[in-house]
Amino acid sequence: MLSLVDLLRRIESGALTPDGAFRLSDEAIAEREGEVGAFVYLDPNAKPSGRGPLNGIAVGVKDIIDTAEMPTEMGSQIYAGWTPRADAPVVSALKRAGATVIGKTTTTAFASTDPTATRNPHLPGHTPGGSSAGSAAAVGAGLIPLALGTQTGGSVIRPAAYCGTAAIKPSFRLIPTVGVKCFAWTLDTVGLFAAGVPDVALALELVSGRPMPLNAPAKPRIGVVTQDFAGVPDPAAGRALERAALLLSQAGAEIWDVKPPASFAEAWEAHGTIQDFEAKHALAWEYDHHRDAIAPNVRAALDAAQAITGGAYDDARRLANRARRDTKELFAELDAVITYPAPGAAPRGHGSTGDPRYNRLWTLLGTPCVNVPGLVWEAGLPVGVQVIAPFARDALALSIAQVLERAHQGA
Amino acid sequence: MLSLVDLLRRIESGALTPDGAFRLSDEAIAEREGEVGAFVYLDPNAKPSGRGPLNGIAVGVKDIIDTAEMPTEMGSQIYAGWTPRADAPVVSALKRAGATVIGKTTTTAFASTDPTATRNPHLPGHTPGGSSAGSAAAVGAGLIPLALGTQTGGSVIRPAAYCGTAAIKPSFRLIPTVGVKCFAWTLDTVGLFAAGVPDVALALELVSGRPMPLNAPAKPRIGVVTQDFAGVPDPAAGRALERAALLLSQAGAEIWDVKPPASFAEAWEAHGTIQDFEAKHALAWEYDHHRDAIAPNVRAALDAAQAITGGAYDDARRLANRARRDTKELFAELDAVITYPAPGAAPRGHGSTGDPRYNRLWTLLGTPCVNVPGLVWEAGLPVGVQVIAPFARDALALSIAQVLERAHQGA
Repeated sequence: MLSLVDLLRRIESGALTPDGAFRLSDEAIAEREGEVGAFVYLDPNAKPSGRGPLNGIAVGVKDIIDTAEMPTEMGSQIYAGWTPRADAPVVSALKRAGATVIGKTTTTAFASTDPTATRNPHLPGHTPGGSSAGSAAAVGAGLIPLALGTQTGGSVIRPAAYCGTAAIKPSFRLIPTVGVKCFAWTLDTVGLFAAGVPDVALALELVSGRPMPLNAPAKPRIGVVTQDFAGVPDPAAGRALERAALLLSQAGAEIWDVKPPASFAEAWEAHGTIQDFEAKHALAWEYDHHRDAIAPNVRAALDAAQAITGGAYDDARRLANRARRDTKELFAELDAVITYPAPGAAPRGHGSTGDPRYNRLWTLLGTPCVNVPGLVWEAGLPVGVQVIAPFARDALALSIAQVLERAHQGA
Repeated sequence: MLSLVDLLRRIESGALTPDGAFRLSDEAIAEREGEVGAFVYLDPNAKPSGRGPLNGIAVGVKDIIDTAEMPTEMGSQIYAGWTPRADAPVVSALKRAGATVIGKTTTTAFASTDPTATRNPHLPGHTPGGSSAGSAAAVGAGLIPLALGTQTGGSVIRPAAYCGTAAIKPSFRLIPTVGVKCFAWTLDTVGLFAAGVPDVALALELVSGRPMPLNAPAKPRIGVVTQDFAGVPDPAAGRALERAALLLSQAGAEIWDVKPPASFAEAWEAHGTIQDFEAKHALAWEYDHHRDAIAPNVRAALDAAQAITGGAYDDARRLANRARRDTKELFAELDAVITYPAPGAAPRGHGSTGDPRYNRLWTLLGTPCVNVPGLVWEAGLPVGVQVIAPFARDALALSIAQVLERAHQGA
């Protein structure tokens, strides 16, 4: 993979020019994009901006995020050839920092669950996950050092785990979702994919304008959460979580087995009601005018969602709010928790993008989640662990993820 | 004014056809639009939908709200001729209910404070207020029975008060802001203008899919809040508030003078920081690519906003959250509070849209606010009162507003 921090360090030292850094992406794309299929659009004229801390850095932008100079097709024929008027604010933030958008990455239709043509960069017969399929695969394949995705259920952390990249789903609304095609307005969260945890931290610092110092407590208190309400994972996911606990413990952490508050299971159940009620409103125009052109999974979800009442939604929101208050209880004695980022390695085939069941709760809670990639490998595929800190403690989540990543790399 | 409830009752009884109801708007527009200037675009082919509970109802849509079949120009030359791909969900909801969008109403640039060419329907030498200038004026002038606006500071309730219409700024996110040009994502709220309180209630019921029964408690407990932190209003605003308290008391309400929690004054101060920090992100593309074409007030606000740090914003958000928690304290013994919707009658001239200082706190708190129009008149201009209920108690706010409106009409 192309490490953002490493590229910038080499540019800083004079060992690499911004043009040279950018060329690494051009060359990797020329070599591997045909096999991976991470991009729905590549800008033939893309080149370094010539300024800013990210001068020379090629970025991929998920194709539900508005770009004024490239099509934004939402993974749907309904938006074929559509070009928005304005860049989304997160794209403007990247450009202000000097990055270059090299292209738009594949997305499942409207960031739902209908698979894209993208292949897992580690084993092409397996899914890269979704909905941010192209962004995860592009970074995982070493095509680009940074990509934008979004998560409403598990669309950043899960594909990151499947493709072996670091990623963050930041605290809710730390990065604005303005100019991002809405699926569910209380859930949609813009996230970042990069090679390793420090790469993600630097990108988040530049995009959000918030400092992200990587300074973990000397003896972090870490809770292990197995999310039993979401069922049993594959053995590989269990092994990765056990390995994370061991590595963190060896690095000085206190490890606790944690049973989440009872409200978490209820909130986990409520996620679907909230997501689908909001989606039926967010996609009302598409449903009313182009229902037959909507991809089958999202169409079926919208068909079912028409029956969700405002009252059911309001009840589900109350359950979510209760669980959000209870995160204080969960984190009262803990710096962070670790849990599965996905039920296991990327599933075989391209009929599904995998299962977001270990991600949905944390999207609903709005807490920062970081994938630490490849703690174990299962038949050629990476299996990660997600590190979760309290709301607005994104730097803490990243710091503890870095402790884990370093322990793994040093082990 | 054209009352939505009255039109539908006449259609129901056979005294009026949907075509006839629609023609009332066509004729009123032909007669008065030249003088009022409420519309930036009128659909020459608009006609009744032929179905649904709002068949025959002509609706005006503020021109920052996306429409797929009409331009959406954001009050800015930067968006001249721009037509979005999709209708905003709130527009889809109106169409599903059978309403017809007859045109787009004027908005200050990006719903900020640069005045439009719209004139107050009661005295053309006065402002209609803003930013939802055209929607307030179109309903106030009797051109249409229903219009959509948005409020980030005071952009629904203030122009409603100035133009003598009922209006609601509903609970935050009761109506989705998807497809509405963002100024500040934690503040922007879609609102409704109509002739009277029952008209607003019916429209909100149909748009939100939530029942809005008008059933006030027999002896509602009402707090009078003067918002001293926002300064002293004009005498006319004080008279309207006194009159409202008297009318409600005569109608059986208990009236209490209420001093808001101390956190409210701090939250009121914090509103500007939150709004402007979010605006600098939301409008980053416009600022980076078209700064010179941005209208002067909003450009100056964006210039100043570039210096607001993430830390200052996060602090302001904490103050807002504290005040939101303290609304429980305010409403512990009260059903609703009443306060000024504006500092007085619509100011003379067209150099300003008036002052949102009595609106900003409640937008930040996310509570439902209803304008009851014309409780007193000052030199030919209406002066209203705003009724505010706890978050998600929109029907209660409307119910108490109806008690006040009826008492006023019967007095």
